[in-house]
Amino acid sequence: MKVAWAGSRETLELSDRMAKLVANDPVFEKFTRPMLGRKELFKNTLRKAAHGWKLIVDLRLTEEEAKWLRLYIDEPAYTDLHWGMFIPAIEGQGTEEQKKKWLPLAQKMKIIGCYAQTELGHGSNVQGLETTATFDPQADEFVIHSPTLTSSKWWPGGLGKASTHALVYARLIVGGEFHGVHGFIVQLRSLEDHSPLPGITVGDIGLKFGNGAYNTMDNGVLRFDHVRIPRNQMLMRVSQVTKEGKYMQSDVPRQLIYGTMVYVRQTIVVDASKALSRAVCIATRYSAVRRQFGSRNGGPETQVIDYKTQQSRLFPLLASAYAFRFVGEWLKWLYMDVKQRLEANDFSTLPEAHACTAGLKSLTTTATADGIEECRKLCGGHGYLVSSGLPELFAVYIPACTYEGDNVVLLLQVARFIVKTVSELGYKQPVGTTAYMGRVATLMQNNCAVRTAEDWLNPGAIVEAFEARAARMAVACGRQLAKFENPEEGFAELASDLVEASVAHCQLIVVSKFIEKLQQDIPGKGVKQSLEILCYVYALFLLHKHQGDFLAVGYLTPKQALLANDQLRTLYSKVRPNAIALVDSFNYTDHYLGSILGRYDGNVYPKLYEAAWEDPLNDSDVADGFHQYVQPILKQKLHSAKL
Amino acid sequence: MKVAWAGSRETLELSDRMAKLVANDPVFEKFTRPMLGRKELFKNTLRKAAHGWKLIVDLRLTEEEAKWLRLYIDEPAYTDLHWGMFIPAIEGQGTEEQKKKWLPLAQKMKIIGCYAQTELGHGSNVQGLETTATFDPQADEFVIHSPTLTSSKWWPGGLGKASTHALVYARLIVGGEFHGVHGFIVQLRSLEDHSPLPGITVGDIGLKFGNGAYNTMDNGVLRFDHVRIPRNQMLMRVSQVTKEGKYMQSDVPRQLIYGTMVYVRQTIVVDASKALSRAVCIATRYSAVRRQFGSRNGGPETQVIDYKTQQSRLFPLLASAYAFRFVGEWLKWLYMDVKQRLEANDFSTLPEAHACTAGLKSLTTTATADGIEECRKLCGGHGYLVSSGLPELFAVYIPACTYEGDNVVLLLQVARFIVKTVSELGYKQPVGTTAYMGRVATLMQNNCAVRTAEDWLNPGAIVEAFEARAARMAVACGRQLAKFENPEEGFAELASDLVEASVAHCQLIVVSKFIEKLQQDIPGKGVKQSLEILCYVYALFLLHKHQGDFLAVGYLTPKQALLANDQLRTLYSKVRPNAIALVDSFNYTDHYLGSILGRYDGNVYPKLYEAAWEDPLNDSDVADGFHQYVQPILKQKLHSAKL
Ligand SMILES: Cc1cc2nc3c(=O)[nH]c(=O)nc-3n(C[C@H](O)[C@H](O)[C@H](O)COP(=O)(O)OP(=O)(O)OC[C@H]3O[C@@H](n4cnc5c(N)ncnc54)[C@H](O)[C@@H]3O)c2cc1C
Ligand SMILES: Cc1cc2nc3c(=O)[nH]c(=O)nc-3n(C[C@H](O)[C@H](O)[C@H](O)COP(=O)(O)OP(=O)(O)OC[C@H]3O[C@@H](n4cnc5c(N)ncnc54)[C@H](O)[C@@H]3O)c2cc1C
Ligand SMILES: [Ca+2]
Repeated sequence: MKVAWAGSRETLELSDRMAKLVANDPVFEKFTRPMLGRKELFKNTLRKAAHGWKLIVDLRLTEEEAKWLRLYIDEPAYTDLHWGMFIPAIEGQGTEEQKKKWLPLAQKMKIIGCYAQTELGHGSNVQGLETTATFDPQADEFVIHSPTLTSSKWWPGGLGKASTHALVYARLIVGGEFHGVHGFIVQLRSLEDHSPLPGITVGDIGLKFGNGAYNTMDNGVLRFDHVRIPRNQMLMRVSQVTKEGKYMQSDVPRQLIYGTMVYVRQTIVVDASKALSRAVCIATRYSAVRRQFGSRNGGPETQVIDYKTQQSRLFPLLASAYAFRFVGEWLKWLYMDVKQRLEANDFSTLPEAHACTAGLKSLTTTATADGIEECRKLCGGHGYLVSSGLPELFAVYIPACTYEGDNVVLLLQVARFIVKTVSELGYKQPVGTTAYMGRVATLMQNNCAVRTAEDWLNPGAIVEAFEARAARMAVACGRQLAKFENPEEGFAELASDLVEASVAHCQLIVVSKFIEKLQQDIPGKGVKQSLEILCYVYALFLLHKHQGDFLAVGYLTPKQALLANDQLRTLYSKVRPNAIALVDSFNYTDHYLGSILGRYDGNVYPKLYEAAWEDPLNDSDVADGFHQYVQPILKQKLHSAKL
Repeated sequence: MKVAWAGSRETLELSDRMAKLVANDPVFEKFTRPMLGRKELFKNTLRKAAHGWKLIVDLRLTEEEAKWLRLYIDEPAYTDLHWGMFIPAIEGQGTEEQKKKWLPLAQKMKIIGCYAQTELGHGSNVQGLETTATFDPQADEFVIHSPTLTSSKWWPGGLGKASTHALVYARLIVGGEFHGVHGFIVQLRSLEDHSPLPGITVGDIGLKFGNGAYNTMDNGVLRFDHVRIPRNQMLMRVSQVTKEGKYMQSDVPRQLIYGTMVYVRQTIVVDASKALSRAVCIATRYSAVRRQFGSRNGGPETQVIDYKTQQSRLFPLLASAYAFRFVGEWLKWLYMDVKQRLEANDFSTLPEAHACTAGLKSLTTTATADGIEECRKLCGGHGYLVSSGLPELFAVYIPACTYEGDNVVLLLQVARFIVKTVSELGYKQPVGTTAYMGRVATLMQNNCAVRTAEDWLNPGAIVEAFEARAARMAVACGRQLAKFENPEEGFAELASDLVEASVAHCQLIVVSKFIEKLQQDIPGKGVKQSLEILCYVYALFLLHKHQGDFLAVGYLTPKQALLANDQLRTLYSKVRPNAIALVDSFNYTDHYLGSILGRYDGNVYPKLYEAAWEDPLNDSDVADGFHQYVQPILKQKLHSAKL
């Protein structure tokens, strides 16, 4: 199963090597992180980033190895944005000349870059950005300026303290005319002493959710006071401004840049499966250690993992982790496919790929954020301790629901695509993940044929159910929309229902890809069988949770919904004996998990007890402040106390 | 509306006075809290607690005033447990003599007490506690001992550093025989110098979720090495141990102590409405400030509160805050009623009151925890900043889902009660919140009569729908259970479905109590109308969210479910113009809200910008650590750097 999770034996071995490299290196210690003040915390992150980079250079790690290394260091740092956004953006949006100039600098880290798009006043609406880049033909320069308070750049990771450069998105003004938002490479700090350059105001935006969590990252604020950059620092692969002040499109198709978006979102989906699987690993292991109630004749109590309520909360999350893992794998394929097509000037699948990745990003990150918190609750009181690892995992994870597209805004984009697909059914064959809509007539007509709980153990029956639900909800939305004179008004009014239809569509994708995965050859004794059980758990859990949809569209009868629920209960019993093995397959080190409750050896209580004494509050028997603020109360001398 | 929310004009005025007292006192400043290290943080809390107590004494505040004061100080402190658990437990479980001895000490704070029940190994299963209290008749003493690591007391608030005394729950052993778990007053620390007494090991259990949040509280660990206490420090109102070593029940009925539980849970429900309303207030105000997309001809963009998706996420939470407020008010009445009955030796309503409060505690705290996080997401990226107030509100609130009964364990208790009620229908008239089950035959038979969206604006139709759903789900569970030979096995196997039936029952209670509230006279222009809209929003939102239940039990047709959803959309438009007024009615000061996004004056952006510069990371232009860990990278001198 470890191989199935990793994707291949090579990846398993490679990632395992990197995991151990990190786990055995004292520089990467994480335990004290939540106790550090902001400055110490940040300094420590700088140290880890430098040490990590040193390892990459010294050990001549490949790009793939370096990625795993950074993952297992498990600490948001400016390098994430440098490697994950700054460099890819230049690769995607820069001309050959620009790439030749900037990429070597960035790749050797002679400069450090960040991705400065969001402003205080605008995040989702990128076209509303207020920073201006005005072309000055005399000087052959752009003047970058922050005309209002709300135009201050706000949020970019790595911007606050680390970056020397930023990829700044600004409204281009040429000859008094606006030409939309474009990217500009702007140097922010001196390469000599790192002080901000003239006209640049830059700093950190302050504390974020959690203790350590994302506070290791210097999300920044940035203002420009008429800062000048050479003309050739506008990324000009797609649009250009000539020396003479002419704005023009190059012959490179605009759509090319969407390829990057597909790529970034694919990585977010893969990360979702990582984060969720970590939480599930902790909660599963601890649920097997924790015993509560049910002792018979003085024997041991019941492991809480044996309670059906615990199973019905935990196992669907375990199944989801696997489901997201496989849909992430498939997205990698999709990205390659899109890339090849783009290179061959074939844009036909781009809208579908775009909607699909938007939807999957939204679906998987929302489910993961909720799932981590559910795992924390599954650990009872002890899950509330930072040493459980779950609070910090939650705090560091949740922005994934917001960045790279707010999850609701993304689902509305999916909805637009679905509505369009439905409206064009008459003359346009839907492709890829929407191909099923081509069979809409059948899907509207045929109802579920399940008669027994056993009948639900059938991939065909499951896919059809999810297809029918998604198709019928989409069609219902289409019909409702048709009642509005103004389609935009209709879309706004029905937005919430459209979002539900989008969710139905995205869940279908995940279920289908899980099932497709199982149609492949999967080596390893019993591996395929275990995955089949998880696949059914995932699908039937969703079906039960959303039975309102399936019943409302008339595809299922109440009886059939009940049978699905019965089958689900049986499936939980089948997961139970494999549960520990299934989370051990993630192959996470104790270092990466960072959780006393999730320790591989199960030695939870002694380690919790030990860890408690590390808190600074336990430095002395009598706490600092006692004599000033408690003693006077006890001695009834509060009136004369100095508070 | 302010009066309706507060409950009465007097309460409004009183609480307003206390809120302002706190807000205007610099000692109660909260802004820097998340930046403090653990020791400083805790010391500051001790200071606030002392200052608060001084105000209470100096200003001769009433108990009611003191409660509001502590609420608005808004910082978990040892005093919460001292006043909220230690004193009430002695009041409820102590003999007259014990009360006479201990209460004056506690009430003057000559001693500080905590409630030490939970252990490292046992929380939910109180009967499984391992700490022992062995009676030694020679010495007329109990010997309190921690025989195992897992018997260490773990979690009690105020225990770690502040408390001088603890109410310790331990298994009583008299003459070699076990007599279950009882409470004992144990002194932990010297009243002279606060050092732990011989045989006592005590400390703080370490960091919890969030920055400030609950880390202001010294949740503690405690071990006993054969610590001796006089016999009269066992709380003996209900059971006694005589000098001669005889264990006996007093003539005070056992059930009396359940009265306290009803009381504590009622306060938790009231607190849920406070926490949720704070989050909703922040998200609502910010949603009116935030504009994104939809600018026409260069005009201002759309306030995000005008997007239907935003409304469909936010307004049900606004309605829930009001719903929980009113069900909390009703629980106060219930508590008084139970108390009076208990005093008259009438225990008939106790099981129902117990199940009802257990269920409402679970329902309201779960919804509030999820609701706060949803409010954070509704604020987009800026909600992730600690200065939004939402991360810390979430972190400090969520343990309410776990303490005073894990929410799932509580729902299982409710399920037991429901199953019992159903099974006894033939010969026992159900009372109180289960009275509707007496009409089960009708509820099974009659289906919904709604024909238009308008028909849903009818309290009768709504209550009947929720009753039918709850009754049918309960009956279905009963039928499924009957198929098992061993009822306990059946209960275990169907636990997850039973929990769903419990939720249906509890939601019915909240909906009914909201509707009953509206049948009263509610003064104020338009107040009743506004509340009616919220009541419908609450009910129809639940109905839509759980339409699977309503459809599966066959009470609703898909068409009727759709009509409810249509009506819901219309209702959101009616809430919109009142939204700001509805959150202003909570009458929260900016101090209490503690949120830049939720500022009353809406001056969000300038204040966010200002606050950013307060972060310690901005103390210098070039961050601490730059020269050691970043400069060498940029200068390509990493090989010679000391990391
Ligand atoms: C930890 C973190 C790291 C980040 N890193 C970077 C970075 O490196 N570089 C960078 O440039 N940015 C970064 N960001 C910013 C991030 O990309 C934005 O926060 C994100 O795009 C969301 O935009 P917003 O904050 O404007 O949300 P808003 O759009 O203000 O959302 C507020 C609410 O309005 C709703 N809403 C908005 N528009 C609509 C609509 N049309 N219809 C219906 N509802 C709507 C949303 O659903 C949400 O509920 C980061 C953010 C975070 C939290
Ligand atoms: C912030 C905070 C403050 C606290 N303050 C105090 C205090 O002042 N004094 C004090 O004494 N205690 C205190 N506690 C402890 C608290 O009361 C317990 O944590 C709580 O009772 C839950 O018990 P547990 O931790 O043992 O959870 P567990 O029972 O271990 O729960 C773990 C999981 O098992 C499941 N589970 C357990 N039993 C069953 C069952 N029978 N059937 C199905 N599922 C089951 C639960 O649903 C949960 O998912 C505090 C806790 C916290 C977090
Ligand atoms: Ca901190």
